[in-house]
This record gives sequence, C-alpha cells and structure tokens, in this order.
Amino acid sequence: MAVPDRVVPADGTAGPVGADPQTFLGALVSLMRAHDSYGVWDRKSDETVLARFVLSPEKRRAIPVTADPDAAVLWRLDVFYTAVGLAVSRQTGLDATSLVKVSGEGFGRAVITVGILVLVSRPLRDVHRFGFESIEALASAGEALVATALARIYRFPALACEAG
Amino acid sequence: MAVPDRVVPADGTAGPVGADPQTFLGALVSLMRAHDSYGVWDRKSDETVLARFVLSPEKRRAIPVTADPDAAVLWRLDVFYTAVGLAVSRQTGLDATSLVKVSGEGFGRAVITVGILVLVSRPLRDVHRFGFESIEALASAGEALVATALARIYRFPALACEAG
Repeated sequence: MAVPDRVVPADGTAGPVGADPQTFLGALVSLMRAHDSYGVWDRKSDETVLARFVLSPEKRRAIPVTADPDAAVLWRLDVFYTAVGLAVSRQTGLDATSLVKVSGEGFGRAVITVGILVLVSRPLRDVHRFGFESIEALASAGEALVATALARIYRFPALACEAG
Repeated sequence: MAVPDRVVPADGTAGPVGADPQTFLGALVSLMRAHDSYGVWDRKSDETVLARFVLSPEKRRAIPVTADPDAAVLWRLDVFYTAVGLAVSRQTGLDATSLVKVSGEGFGRAVITVGILVLVSRPLRDVHRFGFESIEALASAGEALVATALARIYRFPALACEAG
C-alpha cells in the first residue's frame, strides 16, 4: 500500500488544526464541514467547528446518564468514528467503514472494519457524556485509534484487502 | 477449537424445527423465546414463533419502501443476525457479536465479528421488506451465513481468538 507523505506547508508553519486531510482532525473537520450544507460555518475556524466535541469535567459531570442520549451526541459519536475510518482510508487507500450502534441508555459498540479485518472494536458506555477536555485530547484519542488501525492493517495486509 | 457434534435425537426422528441449539433455527428460536418474558409463546410451536419471519412475495411487494422501516422489522433483522452469531458461538465456543445499523430509508449494514476477524459484512437495503418465503428459506439463508462465518474462523483461527 502506498502511504502518501503528510501534507506539510512548505514554509514549515502550522496551518489550521484541520488543514492536513491525512490526520484524524483533518478528517473530522472535513466531515463536519461536509454536513454544513448551507455554509454557515464557512467563516468559522476549525477550532470553532471542533469546539462541540469539547466538554469540561464540570459540564461532563452535570450531564445525567439516565434515559437515551440525545441525537446531537449520537451524531458526534458517529462522526468521530467515521473520521477515524476516513483518516485510515486517506492514508492507505483502503475503504475502512465504521459502524456505531447505541442500543439505549448510553450503551453501545463502535466497530471499524476494512476487508475482513476488524481495526477497532470498542464497547461504549455513558455515551451521553461523549466529549473531550480539549481539542488536543480529542486529537490524541482519534490519532491513537488511527495508529492502532494502521498497525493492524500493516500486520495483516492481505486480510485488509480481501473483499468482505 | 472443539466443535461439539450436532444434537440429534437418539431414535433418529426429527424434533421441533428449533430443537437443535447448534443450528441457526435453534439459535433463532431460543432468542425469540428469550424475549417472551411473560411466557405468551410457551404453548406455541417453533413454527408459529418463526412465522413472523415469513413474507409471501405478494405481501412483500405490498410493503412500501419509502420512509423508515417500522420497529418490528428492525427488531427481526437484529435478531436474525444475532442468531447467526449465536449459532457460530455455540459451535465454536467463541464470542461472535453482531452489529446491525439501519441508517434510515431502509438502508444499512450488518456486521458479525469474532476477535479481530470480520465473519459477515452485508449491506442492507429495502429493510422494510425483510422476510423469507418460507421457514425453509429462512433456515437456508441463516445457515449459509453460519457456514461462511465458520469457514472464515477455520481459515484464520488465530485472528478469531485474538482480543479485539
């Protein structure tokens, strides 16, 4: 598999946090903006677009974990795992697909597969409180999943390329 | 992996269609009955319990495929794939898990995994019309998925046993 080099500005300066499409944050920003059909976020920075994934410890604790999580958090959870799959796809050229299912009361499971290989399989709980302390924490969590997924693809390339 | 022999009545006669827990129909009947908390189906035959999976070609055509499928058909779809995973688990001792997600308008995806191996991955469409012409057709469809899943486990036993 040809893994293209990361896109880095020629002058070495860092661009917007979501500027590099190969990274997890780049994938997440492009997915978020893709949903913005009316261009409401066009003038908003990547940080502003990503801000809805940030949840301070105080705010997190204040969210009750009874009943079903609301649609907005379910959507963010879905976009998070889709972005992991998209970053993997952009770096490998393989079609990684994610599937997130929350069965109720905030419990569920997230699975990312490519070919006949499971890249990520996570039980989910307290989905109501899905969020990160900072954009950096969000990036770390996403990049960790991308790294795990890529390591598994490099371990079993034939399975990753086999039709499911 | 120790795969126990199928349970066959000693006198060679066939029992109820769901009598053998190792088969797909056996797994499906036990899942259906497990949801029957009040024992309403206790006196009903396996055929009656399975009848809700049967859909004649005429009835199938009469179901519109617009808007979202109703909750009952989503539940049957989920139980169908869960039964495939359960039959695989019973025959191998491994924890196969299924994940069915319908994203709306009757499109979706079903995935069954064990360890880091994808056993089944199916795109779903026209979920509104999920059903089979007969109990035999239901059994064939389920057993075909079980057979595919088992073949993959025997091909990659180490991956099937690796923690996800």
